[in-house]
Amino acid sequence: MHQKARIALDAMGGDHGPSVVVPGAAIALERHPDTEFLLFGNEAELTPLVKAHPRLAAASRIVHTEVAIGMNDKPSQALRKGRWKSSMWLAIDAVKKGDADVAVSAGNTGALMAMSRFHLRTLPGVKNPAIAALWPTLRGESIVLDVGASIGADAQHLTDLAVMGGAMARVLFDLERPTVGLLNIGVEEVKGLEQIREAGRMLRDLDLQELDYVGFVEGDDIGKGKVDVVVTEGFTGNIALKTAEGTAKQMATHLRSAMSRTWMARIGYLFARQAFATMREKMDPRRVNGGVLLGLTGVVIKSHGGTDAEGFAYAIDMGYDMARYDLLQKINQMLRRPVPDGSDTERLTEAVS
Amino acid sequence: MHQKARIALDAMGGDHGPSVVVPGAAIALERHPDTEFLLFGNEAELTPLVKAHPRLAAASRIVHTEVAIGMNDKPSQALRKGRWKSSMWLAIDAVKKGDADVAVSAGNTGALMAMSRFHLRTLPGVKNPAIAALWPTLRGESIVLDVGASIGADAQHLTDLAVMGGAMARVLFDLERPTVGLLNIGVEEVKGLEQIREAGRMLRDLDLQELDYVGFVEGDDIGKGKVDVVVTEGFTGNIALKTAEGTAKQMATHLRSAMSRTWMARIGYLFARQAFATMREKMDPRRVNGGVLLGLTGVVIKSHGGTDAEGFAYAIDMGYDMARYDLLQKINQMLRRPVPDGSDTERLTEAVS
Repeated sequence: MHQKARIALDAMGGDHGPSVVVPGAAIALERHPDTEFLLFGNEAELTPLVKAHPRLAAASRIVHTEVAIGMNDKPSQALRKGRWKSSMWLAIDAVKKGDADVAVSAGNTGALMAMSRFHLRTLPGVKNPAIAALWPTLRGESIVLDVGASIGADAQHLTDLAVMGGAMARVLFDLERPTVGLLNIGVEEVKGLEQIREAGRMLRDLDLQELDYVGFVEGDDIGKGKVDVVVTEGFTGNIALKTAEGTAKQMATHLRSAMSRTWMARIGYLFARQAFATMREKMDPRRVNGGVLLGLTGVVIKSHGGTDAEGFAYAIDMGYDMARYDLLQKINQMLRRPVPDGSDTERLTEAVS
Repeated sequence: MHQKARIALDAMGGDHGPSVVVPGAAIALERHPDTEFLLFGNEAELTPLVKAHPRLAAASRIVHTEVAIGMNDKPSQALRKGRWKSSMWLAIDAVKKGDADVAVSAGNTGALMAMSRFHLRTLPGVKNPAIAALWPTLRGESIVLDVGASIGADAQHLTDLAVMGGAMARVLFDLERPTVGLLNIGVEEVKGLEQIREAGRMLRDLDLQELDYVGFVEGDDIGKGKVDVVVTEGFTGNIALKTAEGTAKQMATHLRSAMSRTWMARIGYLFARQAFATMREKMDPRRVNGGVLLGLTGVVIKSHGGTDAEGFAYAIDMGYDMARYDLLQKINQMLRRPVPDGSDTERLTEAVS
């Protein structure tokens, strides 16, 4: 770890590009002054924006490129045409080369995943990368993974997800031994998939000191914050995440419409305005902006494409924590830990090779 | 169809048994006076409760049994010990024998599914039963299936789910040609499971006149009410349903706590009380109580175990619609419809045999 957290930014990524990325970096820098930025993108666009934030200007370097990956480019396209020159690729490349500790991009998810996987490669023993998301709960926040990096997972991959999510929870929530649950369904008749049961047995057998495996959790346990880390394969995780987002939006819409329908309600709203603001803040999607690509030899953060500067700053904050508290080393330690009897067999790694 | 809708009730099922089932039936009867009830359960318990509702007493018959399936009995237990005598079994048996058009139970899901499947059997060509749930949306209500009857689905089963859900939407929402979508994930890199793409092709090829297949939908499209019927396999469907329930509860909790924290907020709440009531009603889980077991030779409705009389009445209402508008016949017609060229090949049925 360098003295400063070195963060590479895909300055052209996202729906709004530099106009969100640069002020976002300025906000994050105020919260974490021990940060350095590498900004990849169009210098002519970036320079005036950066100059508007003198502290940011002092803490960042612009690396010019004219190529940007479009939000609707297919991953295969992104990997083909001029990929080496795009702001997204260069940000990932900075991590690969060791010039940055982490890369943050609001660019298109498919391209970011494809490039990250292609260039950074998966960690030894890890089959597929995962995207881990922060999920606001009644107890604060939980980590849910995988929310869409790959479809399907065998028991070994679910176990790897548990380990990687556990490491992330230690870094992000500053917990000694975060609780981890496997997402499953509770209908008696159908007792869940065999690979989930098998992963449960593996996690119990491993008995890791860095995480506390508590068993199966159901869909409604996520919002309750029953565990710090919820583990599932990417298809179900993506459906769960988007379904929850949809439900939250739906309730917010109902609430807005209810509070504006009558004069009495509008007066009520005026009195309770502060309360509504507090509630909005609790469910603010910007605060949980930032999916972490896990399982690669470097850490890449995916910001929502449509977020604003405040939201992008949260994604940078997450990258900062990952760099500052050395997520990657923690994951590697846990994946390659010696078996309890003291021999240095790399059990988890062996199991998949 | 008989002149009256004949509904068999497992009067001992659910957390509260007859004390919810009987008043629930009384409420449903007021809404649909052309209903007859067969109440299976302990006569000594049921008689005084039924007598308290003279109209219900006139429209129902009690069939005594002393056996009830416990809420925590395993399906295998439920199928073993004295199953022929339990109130749950007898309600299903009434449908099997043609004494009732539909059975409603708030009893344990696993047992109800196991018994229904064992006794009623699946429709010709249908591999597995499904549970269809009503889902409150911004546009009203949608049907989501399967929410947990079976894990995994090949393209043919997904197509059957689309057909059965479409038939249910026609009956329940009184639509000529309900819209149907396949639940999928939108990440570019991982384009979804092959069986979902294949089901999409099959539905397009079938080009059914009874439903409008509109393509893939994502998790957040459910709450938007983008389609009338959302089709997915049981594991993902169950996770999605419970995750949405969890998110709704979470937001309600945040709202309650926000509205009681300060004096200003409490005053605001008083003014806006009616607005909150309207919103609560929109998201009232009781109004969407009732999962429909589809794909069997008879219709069985599963009510939430912990619901109250009002909630149970909604489950009965659903059963009433299924009976009144002959869901089963509609499903059979659609599953066995002749191919467009006019030959009477039973295409869908053939495809799986």
